[in-house]
Amino acid sequence: MPDLRKDPITGRWVIIATDRARRPADFTREPVRSTHGRICPFCPGHEGKTPPEVLAYRGSGGPNQSGWSLRVVPNKFPALRVEGEVDRQGEGLYDHMNGIGAHEVIIESPDHAASLAEMPEKAVSDVFFAFRDRILDLKKDPRLRYVIVFKNHGEAAGATLEHTHSQLIALPVVPKRVQEELDGAQRYYHFRERCIFCDILQQELASRQRIVFETDHFLAVAPYASRFPFETWIVPRRHSSHFSSAEPSILHNLGWTVRTVLRKFEKVLERPAFNAIIHTAPVQDGELDHYHWHIELIPKLTKVAGFEWGTGFYINPTPPEEAARFLREAGLV
Amino acid sequence: MPDLRKDPITGRWVIIATDRARRPADFTREPVRSTHGRICPFCPGHEGKTPPEVLAYRGSGGPNQSGWSLRVVPNKFPALRVEGEVDRQGEGLYDHMNGIGAHEVIIESPDHAASLAEMPEKAVSDVFFAFRDRILDLKKDPRLRYVIVFKNHGEAAGATLEHTHSQLIALPVVPKRVQEELDGAQRYYHFRERCIFCDILQQELASRQRIVFETDHFLAVAPYASRFPFETWIVPRRHSSHFSSAEPSILHNLGWTVRTVLRKFEKVLERPAFNAIIHTAPVQDGELDHYHWHIELIPKLTKVAGFEWGTGFYINPTPPEEAARFLREAGLV
Repeated sequence: MPDLRKDPITGRWVIIATDRARRPADFTREPVRSTHGRICPFCPGHEGKTPPEVLAYRGSGGPNQSGWSLRVVPNKFPALRVEGEVDRQGEGLYDHMNGIGAHEVIIESPDHAASLAEMPEKAVSDVFFAFRDRILDLKKDPRLRYVIVFKNHGEAAGATLEHTHSQLIALPVVPKRVQEELDGAQRYYHFRERCIFCDILQQELASRQRIVFETDHFLAVAPYASRFPFETWIVPRRHSSHFSSAEPSILHNLGWTVRTVLRKFEKVLERPAFNAIIHTAPVQDGELDHYHWHIELIPKLTKVAGFEWGTGFYINPTPPEEAARFLREAGLV
Repeated sequence: MPDLRKDPITGRWVIIATDRARRPADFTREPVRSTHGRICPFCPGHEGKTPPEVLAYRGSGGPNQSGWSLRVVPNKFPALRVEGEVDRQGEGLYDHMNGIGAHEVIIESPDHAASLAEMPEKAVSDVFFAFRDRILDLKKDPRLRYVIVFKNHGEAAGATLEHTHSQLIALPVVPKRVQEELDGAQRYYHFRERCIFCDILQQELASRQRIVFETDHFLAVAPYASRFPFETWIVPRRHSSHFSSAEPSILHNLGWTVRTVLRKFEKVLERPAFNAIIHTAPVQDGELDHYHWHIELIPKLTKVAGFEWGTGFYINPTPPEEAARFLREAGLV
């Protein structure tokens, strides 16, 4: 069972993955996992190489058979496990709990070489429908407090398998950075009685300097205090705290919006590795007036070094106004 | 002038380096800077290729000539500038200030191919004496609130020049993560009336599970909630909040201690890239009862991915007890 440990100074939780404990040689002699061709566990015909699916969109075939267009399976090497009760314990001045949670993989396409930037619009939207469906299912479990959905694309961004996929981790705690964002938004709400994200949208629409593009439902914007070059946020125009309560029309539009940002990244930055993360409210909370879900997309262009780790203080060599201009001028590709 | 911008939601400050604004092609076609041989600006004989030195330890020669064993120079492409007054301004709901501060490079040896793990003990201690001397000088400037000292070793850890060096950035604000650590330590102090780091030392000495090794002045320990495999903290046994107030005997011992940890890393992890960061109290604060300076050493073995960025929640595949055992068993090399 993985161990969840809390840093006693900062309150930061860490998953210590005892089950798959890695020894020094695992790091130094780690082979690049080439998954091309017939050995890829995410390719059709290899459904038996993953744990049984928890969700699939399919035109034909039964569960765990070919014929799917999208498939969600538990991670074969999960960082967290669903079995058991949440058990918090002390150990002298330290705190830990057992690693209850879920860790799932969303296989976005049966095509090994597909990418979100190039997939049909409908297939990209389906990925977001799958995220929503999985979150709505997982939130029924009251032990689970937060579901983080993310995608690592490319080796530099931390992807270890080539076949296009995203991941979802359901946690028994609200992570510190998420809580910090919620608290910051709440402080602003107490002061102004307005959602800070709604106010940001308004200011960005007025200045237009950092807008990458807009759709009926979303704004793609380079945030004012971007940590990374070409960091881009996709923010829904209408206030809503939970990604999982987005209506079908919004999810359809979201697929198009994300795909467009990724195509702009590909054009301007020559097919960069990237990370994408959905920022949304804790699953057990009702609709919140002060929080506003959104997606953060970060092309992996610079290496994060000691300075950033030590301080949470980033040096960004590309002003967001310039990043937005480059992406804007790339057109709606 | 670089721009310091504050994220309105989380309060995180970001340096937007407008002076050296990087365009898309700078990322996609960035050459690896090979600095071997005569073109290295940090090698003796090339003193004119850096800004004039602000500190040097030398056996012979005048300022900005050869004969030095250690040299500190302003960064040629500084993230922050010393000139001007701190000027905070609003921009709608956003906050920014001009990028006042200092950014210096500590050239640790005249030998291009040297590394801290292999340099003589005295030369490693001298690096810490240089850090101390520079902090004591910079703290005279009341505009500067925090000095972060860090080292990126190896390309994977973000080093862009090969010649062994560390860096120092003096900031007009206390960074968010540093403030968080200070606040966490203070909360514990209010509750227990004891320093949390002193208590951690005591608990670690009692259990011995996570101790890598100990000297008269320091404990090298794998922290209980390690974020990264083989993360190692070097903590002084005697309570002290400011690195810069360490006595010469402590700095001598620190050189030996850091060199020993790095030699253990080299042996166990096959010469990994690493980051090192000095965690110390804000320079304008007096001695604090609740904070305890220390050094965090992080070998760069895993890629940090979307999950970590989104949540500040880390998955560590190597329990610190095992990491400590491997490093302990590597002996005092």
